[in-house]
Amino acid sequence: MEKLEPIYEGKAKKLFETDDPDILLLEYKNTLTAFNALKKTTMEGKGALNNKISSYILQYLASRGVPNHFVKMVDEVRQLVRKVEIIPLEVVVRNITTGSICKRLGVPEGINLNPPLVEFYLKNDELGDPIVTEDQAISFGWASEEEIQKIKNMALQVNQLLKDLFKPLGITLVDFKLEFGKTKDGEIILADEISPDTCRFWDSSSGDRLDKDRFRKDLGNVLEAYQEIWRRLSAKGEE
Amino acid sequence: MEKLEPIYEGKAKKLFETDDPDILLLEYKNTLTAFNALKKTTMEGKGALNNKISSYILQYLASRGVPNHFVKMVDEVRQLVRKVEIIPLEVVVRNITTGSICKRLGVPEGINLNPPLVEFYLKNDELGDPIVTEDQAISFGWASEEEIQKIKNMALQVNQLLKDLFKPLGITLVDFKLEFGKTKDGEIILADEISPDTCRFWDSSSGDRLDKDRFRKDLGNVLEAYQEIWRRLSAKGEE
Repeated sequence: MEKLEPIYEGKAKKLFETDDPDILLLEYKNTLTAFNALKKTTMEGKGALNNKISSYILQYLASRGVPNHFVKMVDEVRQLVRKVEIIPLEVVVRNITTGSICKRLGVPEGINLNPPLVEFYLKNDELGDPIVTEDQAISFGWASEEEIQKIKNMALQVNQLLKDLFKPLGITLVDFKLEFGKTKDGEIILADEISPDTCRFWDSSSGDRLDKDRFRKDLGNVLEAYQEIWRRLSAKGEE
Repeated sequence: MEKLEPIYEGKAKKLFETDDPDILLLEYKNTLTAFNALKKTTMEGKGALNNKISSYILQYLASRGVPNHFVKMVDEVRQLVRKVEIIPLEVVVRNITTGSICKRLGVPEGINLNPPLVEFYLKNDELGDPIVTEDQAISFGWASEEEIQKIKNMALQVNQLLKDLFKPLGITLVDFKLEFGKTKDGEIILADEISPDTCRFWDSSSGDRLDKDRFRKDLGNVLEAYQEIWRRLSAKGEE
């Protein structure tokens, strides 16, 4: 079904064309990177877990009115997705302060943010994905004012739905990163993955990190944390 | 009139209390710093020029409806100002891209920004005055949503008035930094200085830099550039 050469290879995924010009094949790699790929490893089984977790979450969101690129899983590490033109902004939603924001702005860890904070970062590895203001994004043509507002609203809707999904599973959604794309009809839909690579998940009782922070901070048991997220999600039943 | 010890000493100014608890004495120093004070020099006469230029501009703005802290000049290097609680945000207005924004975001130099871009930076030397989004400023209590909107509107009004002032003098206003403060009555007014230390001024015909960039970039004739700004302003007549 797919062509042999990827049309795009990122840090954690490869994209292939298919016979359908509107559909791409997304392959999840076992690579794990942090700090703009300065830290890097390979972890057998990580790609399969993220494929399953992200498929589950994107189906859950679609069924609750958040249009996204997911079409269907093909096998353990691959899924079909709608082809979109990616908007060059990473969208971060924060419910609790931790990580880069605390260092950069000197704010304490663990502040509950209410309302949640939505931030935009320019997708540019060479520049280290710098934060951009909404006005900058509009001035430099990375998104229109209307698109920024739409993306912000969708990001907050996704946040609420993810909190609703994870809270009964004993998981606190601390923050996460989204990407959005435009379909050939100009519709803005959610793209990329939603997984322990792109979210901070804390066990609500123990506070244990169940996400890529285990790798960033050398906490050990990285794959086990991803497995635990999948165990709780799949125990909940199909979406 | 003033007490002997400054209550605050910054990179380019000292502040003293006066007999009136609502009025402070602001003294302009001859120190010139750049890159968060990593580069530093002293330039005889710089303080006096900035005192005159800033007094002129703040009077001009007050007479056109922009409330600010300026009361009156006292002598060559000192002026009386209203005491305010400084809002911990530096407000940058850009008409043309140059400097840090081009490096940080990879955008070309010399783009005309229409509408002008307003940015907020956290006043924190230790953190290198990081840029903050409006939502971050509100979330972390550096200003309220209403204050942000008010400051943004005032900054754009100041920009228009400064462009009106400098254009007939053959000077292009490229960008500038403002600070705002709250009076004891809670009114938000413009504070700090407006001078070649805090603005980028380009000669409209030659493109020559007439501001602190001459010092940042080692272009020479720094004091002469400041003198040229004052020469053109004072030739225009009193405000």
